Amino acid sequence: MRPIHKTTSLSMADAETEVRRTLADQGFGVLTEIDVATTLRNKLGIERAPLKILGACNPTFAHRALELDERVSLMLPCNVVLSAKGGQTTIRAVDPRDLMPSGEFDDLATEVANRLQAAVDAVPEH
Amino acid sequence: MRPIHKTTSLSMADAETEVRRTLADQGFGVLTEIDVATTLRNKLGIERAPLKILGACNPTFAHRALELDERVSLMLPCNVVLSAKGGQTTIRAVDPRDLMPSGEFDDLATEVANRLQAAVDAVPEH
Repeated sequence: MRPIHKTTSLSMADAETEVRRTLADQGFGVLTEIDVATTLRNKLGIERAPLKILGACNPTFAHRALELDERVSLMLPCNVVLSAKGGQTTIRAVDPRDLMPSGEFDDLATEVANRLQAAVDAVPEH
Repeated sequence: MRPIHKTTSLSMADAETEVRRTLADQGFGVLTEIDVATTLRNKLGIERAPLKILGACNPTFAHRALELDERVSLMLPCNVVLSAKGGQTTIRAVDPRDLMPSGEFDDLATEVANRLQAAVDAVPEH
């Protein structure tokens, strides 16, 4: 796993607002969200540090990927994860190059990785 | 990619009902859903065959995986994908062994893969 990541002193809520904006600037909409900490509290009664998974999708790239091989749907959307610890928020994005078999997806996976990297980089540090 | 898959003559809607039930039997809740065909129609004006992504999560296994390495959140939830073509519906599930680096996740990824396989196998063929 080669996560694309950044740590910021923004609260998790503010970091989420920022990363949704920077993802939109790169053409990604957020299609799904999972509040992992709340889900595990409700299902298992476990307390854990805040953790939220956003499912980001750039429709143009998703369409191109699906045209190459519909099984890529097993890897969609691209996860962007927020976690909070010690007054800091970490934002991680999946690197699509870790998910795709090398070959026909190489160029597309690199382009998507670069855009996710740009979105994460653009979140302010404080 | 080693998808776990099954083809059935059930409609996509009926296959979804069945797989949600068989996933629940294996301890998976469906936390997210993306209607890919509708999303691409709305965003890009493209018509494509029906395709839906369900995000399935077994909270006990998710918790165990997150305890091993929180970065596993980049790979959650497990996708279960429904697609329709020629009067048939195909159900595919991701194989977590394809997503995880080998090593500490091996046993857990195999257990989750076996449960996803059991859920897909249990969907009726017609």
